[in-house]
Amino acid sequence: MKKRTRPPILLIHGGCGSTPPTASQLKTIEAALDRGETLLQKGTSALDAVEAAVVVLEKSGRFNAGKGSKRQMDGIARMDASVMNGRDLSAGAVAAMEGILTPVRAARLVMERTPHLLLVGQSAERLSRLFHLPPLPPSLAAPKPPPHDLSFGKWEPLFRKLQGKRDDEAAELGTVGAVARDKEGNVAAATSTGGIRMMLPGRVGDSPLIGAGTYADNLAGAVSMTGLGEAIIRAGLAKEITLAMEGGDSPEAAGSSALIRMRRRIGGEAGAIILSAEGDFALLHTTDSMPGGYRAGRRRKTAGRFQKVMED
Amino acid sequence: MKKRTRPPILLIHGGCGSTPPTASQLKTIEAALDRGETLLQKGTSALDAVEAAVVVLEKSGRFNAGKGSKRQMDGIARMDASVMNGRDLSAGAVAAMEGILTPVRAARLVMERTPHLLLVGQSAERLSRLFHLPPLPPSLAAPKPPPHDLSFGKWEPLFRKLQGKRDDEAAELGTVGAVARDKEGNVAAATSTGGIRMMLPGRVGDSPLIGAGTYADNLAGAVSMTGLGEAIIRAGLAKEITLAMEGGDSPEAAGSSALIRMRRRIGGEAGAIILSAEGDFALLHTTDSMPGGYRAGRRRKTAGRFQKVMED
Repeated sequence: MKKRTRPPILLIHGGCGSTPPTASQLKTIEAALDRGETLLQKGTSALDAVEAAVVVLEKSGRFNAGKGSKRQMDGIARMDASVMNGRDLSAGAVAAMEGILTPVRAARLVMERTPHLLLVGQSAERLSRLFHLPPLPPSLAAPKPPPHDLSFGKWEPLFRKLQGKRDDEAAELGTVGAVARDKEGNVAAATSTGGIRMMLPGRVGDSPLIGAGTYADNLAGAVSMTGLGEAIIRAGLAKEITLAMEGGDSPEAAGSSALIRMRRRIGGEAGAIILSAEGDFALLHTTDSMPGGYRAGRRRKTAGRFQKVMED
Repeated sequence: MKKRTRPPILLIHGGCGSTPPTASQLKTIEAALDRGETLLQKGTSALDAVEAAVVVLEKSGRFNAGKGSKRQMDGIARMDASVMNGRDLSAGAVAAMEGILTPVRAARLVMERTPHLLLVGQSAERLSRLFHLPPLPPSLAAPKPPPHDLSFGKWEPLFRKLQGKRDDEAAELGTVGAVARDKEGNVAAATSTGGIRMMLPGRVGDSPLIGAGTYADNLAGAVSMTGLGEAIIRAGLAKEITLAMEGGDSPEAAGSSALIRMRRRIGGEAGAIILSAEGDFALLHTTDSMPGGYRAGRRRKTAGRFQKVMED
């Protein structure tokens, strides 16, 4: 098929881990796919579609993003998100942001309303409020009593306890992401997450980092990651997968070899939704499950797991 | 020469831009090269050497990093830094951190004393103080009256003014970085920066982002970037250059093609210090100047410019 005659494509993930998703999580993924697919069929850009799909997931409260965000060790929920447009490589991101229901829209604001790419902390929240993004419900925005004593001098034993700890549970909690290819053949990617348990305040993972958790380039394809953030950053996974596709690898080949390479060299489980510039795609994970789905014309699926990547 | 018989190598940059460095900047670069080279000759790791060299630059107050950091639009200096060890791909970073004299040492603390990779804001400062990193001198840590009215509702006209503005001046202000290869053949990279003029509070550039401003991998080499941070993030430059070297490109070929590709597709000037796993190296810039230097046995140079990369 020629590039421009392919139907629009949308892929979504809702995190990866060892436990299967709930029925309500799968239903929410269906709703997000519906929302994005409807927009794409109307001729909306891939960028608008991935944002809209992620907003559905963020607002649902059923994933660890937006309304469902977990709290960091000081009892406050901080959120990270990023978005990238493969058409012109423009991108935006927020990290360690409090109090906003739809962080992916905050990332888009940074991209379009500032000369910057990444805003962190209060500044990201301030920008979001200036542009009237909806706040988190007050009960969620208010800090809970921290489960750990973080007063000065009490951190060191906590650090020792945490040091070397594998944040395997990161995978359990449902980072969300979407990649799409629109009728014009443009690709885009978006990723959004809350925190992980036993996470120090201000910890930032791969989701808001372009090249780590998110990448999109019309010459290659689009990628959104989920899994152990620190490992994904160290591996530069989204960029590595995108460059491999630019070199001619299929989404499946590019993603499998990057996930296995990361696990061998660094350790750490992850999942990826990967879409090539030509419209081929793969949903891969080294974990047992990765709730997600795709819509690509008559090819349509929503499930708790897709293609589990194994060592040779 | 066989890999392990090569002398240790250290490269440093002090930012890139259109104006030549001052004599005192070049003298500081000499001092940083001396410090790192002495350590490497004693058998210290590449990681320790790049950290020590960057600390000299941060403490000097002559570059836009550590003591010399510029203030963001709200009158407060916030600093970013990262460090990566090519031996095991371990890495640490801080962003939007206030009040600490040696941000690169804070990045190393995140790497070694927490299970995380990137800490932003107050948490990064708190960790640094817990481990007794020296604070900025009080006169520098105190906020200055902001040069712009950032009260709520006044941001929008500022955003409009900033929107689309090219932060070309980012290149003028002297981000610093170092890459090294030790006697064992391990490579490492470190980058540290303050702010840029007309920068919103909480803006984070490429320097603390692994894969954007900093990367190191014993299988490929080590890279530290300087220049327009937003473009460098969008291009994923440090990771792209490292992967090209892993594929067999020389530092010069890998760096030149990545810098030119970024300028063509995204726009934006940058410089890079690049060291291959085998000990070949290049100091490249698309700007007129990039103060820096290298020490590699009898090959030794400190200068205001190195190899200017041009379009074909």
